Amino acid sequence: MRLAVIGAGAVGRSVVELAGEYGHEVVAVADSSSATVADGTDGRAGGIGVDPDAVVARKAERGIVGDADPDDALAADYDVLVEATPTTLGDAEPGFSHVTAALERDRHAVLANKGPVAERFGDLRAAVDDSDGEIRFEATVGGAIPAVSTVEDIEPGHVTAVRGVLNGTANFILTRMAAEGLDYDHVLAEAQDLGVAEADPSFDVDGTDAALKCVILANVLSFGAVDDPDAAREFTLADADVSGIRDVPGSALRLAAEDGRTVRLIGEATGETVRVAPRLVPENGTLAVSGTQNIVQIETTHAGRLNISGRGAGGPETASAVLGDVGRLE
Amino acid sequence: MRLAVIGAGAVGRSVVELAGEYGHEVVAVADSSSATVADGTDGRAGGIGVDPDAVVARKAERGIVGDADPDDALAADYDVLVEATPTTLGDAEPGFSHVTAALERDRHAVLANKGPVAERFGDLRAAVDDSDGEIRFEATVGGAIPAVSTVEDIEPGHVTAVRGVLNGTANFILTRMAAEGLDYDHVLAEAQDLGVAEADPSFDVDGTDAALKCVILANVLSFGAVDDPDAAREFTLADADVSGIRDVPGSALRLAAEDGRTVRLIGEATGETVRVAPRLVPENGTLAVSGTQNIVQIETTHAGRLNISGRGAGGPETASAVLGDVGRLE
Repeated sequence: MRLAVIGAGAVGRSVVELAGEYGHEVVAVADSSSATVADGTDGRAGGIGVDPDAVVARKAERGIVGDADPDDALAADYDVLVEATPTTLGDAEPGFSHVTAALERDRHAVLANKGPVAERFGDLRAAVDDSDGEIRFEATVGGAIPAVSTVEDIEPGHVTAVRGVLNGTANFILTRMAAEGLDYDHVLAEAQDLGVAEADPSFDVDGTDAALKCVILANVLSFGAVDDPDAAREFTLADADVSGIRDVPGSALRLAAEDGRTVRLIGEATGETVRVAPRLVPENGTLAVSGTQNIVQIETTHAGRLNISGRGAGGPETASAVLGDVGRLE
Repeated sequence: MRLAVIGAGAVGRSVVELAGEYGHEVVAVADSSSATVADGTDGRAGGIGVDPDAVVARKAERGIVGDADPDDALAADYDVLVEATPTTLGDAEPGFSHVTAALERDRHAVLANKGPVAERFGDLRAAVDDSDGEIRFEATVGGAIPAVSTVEDIEPGHVTAVRGVLNGTANFILTRMAAEGLDYDHVLAEAQDLGVAEADPSFDVDGTDAALKCVILANVLSFGAVDDPDAAREFTLADADVSGIRDVPGSALRLAAEDGRTVRLIGEATGETVRVAPRLVPENGTLAVSGTQNIVQIETTHAGRLNISGRGAGGPETASAVLGDVGRLE
């Protein structure tokens, strides 16, 4: 497949670097201010796609991916648009428009950007209905963990709930607090030093990121369980009941440990509710994954509970989910 | 899709019972001596498929699924043949012939029977190459756990190894031995009383069942990593290095426990080797699933390690994997 990769952060760059290994060709790459579009002359004899190494080097050295305009990448002759720009809330722009532009041209779109699928799922479904293209968004939930496609394979009508640990930063902090008996502020500073937490950690520690993932799962469950999309309930972040981990005291973790338990930030989605909150879980139980690991538990009507754990973030991990989606579109 | 279900054990019966919920129609069912083929008059006004309740009731009450001949079911007008007869080794008959008969008619086949995919994978691939039909076999490995499809989505060329606990009976016995400090013979008798172990438990406790699953995974890895099937190495049970759990003494589990470890029957497949043996694993670690749970660990080149655990056996659980495969064929 010919890919246009929009967004040149860790995920977008990894998609550019790994696409060839999965048998795909990157024909265009854009960041917010620049682009490169393959013309067969991008440093490679006989190459059709862009040269991945050249794109990554330009981004690192000059802060741009090429000398073209971002609109040129959007207009390129691709089969699949990969939307890997940063997640935005509300109107979910510019990601939403990138995806719908692809659908209007009857091309597919694969999203790593949570915004459009969390905040405007109904609008996206309507755009898909008017298109020969499809959308996929495995990378928006749990990095390398195949949460969305597993729910799709089981079929949403046979899944009663999906829950899990869906934010590695919050989980790293809770794991370290419990293991070292340290307070939140101390461990947060350590996580920031290690690059596990951002300078402004609110998106992760307040539960917003986990909530967006649960909203996406709730939309998959809700829309997937009905034949008529108009009958489905659409979820956005505003429908989620969210508490973060800022107010979890070290003493709560010590008390929990005395009882063989620990605290995890658990998100849960059904076709009717979305909730994210710190919850007590058994210390050696399935949900108590360590550090930046993520886990998803899928409750099914006929096959019991399925647990999937793995790396919930990271450039190559998330790119691997994107390229898995591309493979499913072939 | 119109399904012909061949085999009326726990899995076949569950497929018959659940197919309607997944939007499919069962047009024929056979066991080894009888069959029923839908003619629109099977007890239901206007029904096209067979009446699931009537089939299950006849099997329970009279030991037959209907008054037709098994060959009539094989000749029925189905889209997908579901091969759910008991696993046989060597020539993998009659399952192998059922599947190739479907492929010769350009129909799909979904297998719950491990024999053909473990013992004659090369022959099956050749039959698929000559057909417009495809085969799928998620149900042959780990019951409700989506091991095969997850490896396929990641792509076999990006998976270096798959390992895990793939036999619930052996795992139940090891779990009970460790928890209660009992010896193998005692726990085996208990497992037989509970129906967790068969009267002749050798298939499970000698590692054969786990080995067949690993052989299937090795074939998926080997054939999936090359473009030319002739270049792939084919695995059969004879290629597997297998030790079972009969000789694990209770004392070994007690020694392991003193070191925070326990014993699990671990199977591992790469594109080059298949091995099944009792191995020490951390007591609270990911591989130490309890009771009849199964777990699969997938080692990837770009996305780290993925763990999937769930129910590794059971009629509805395995039928749910079969029906997931049917969904993927649509």
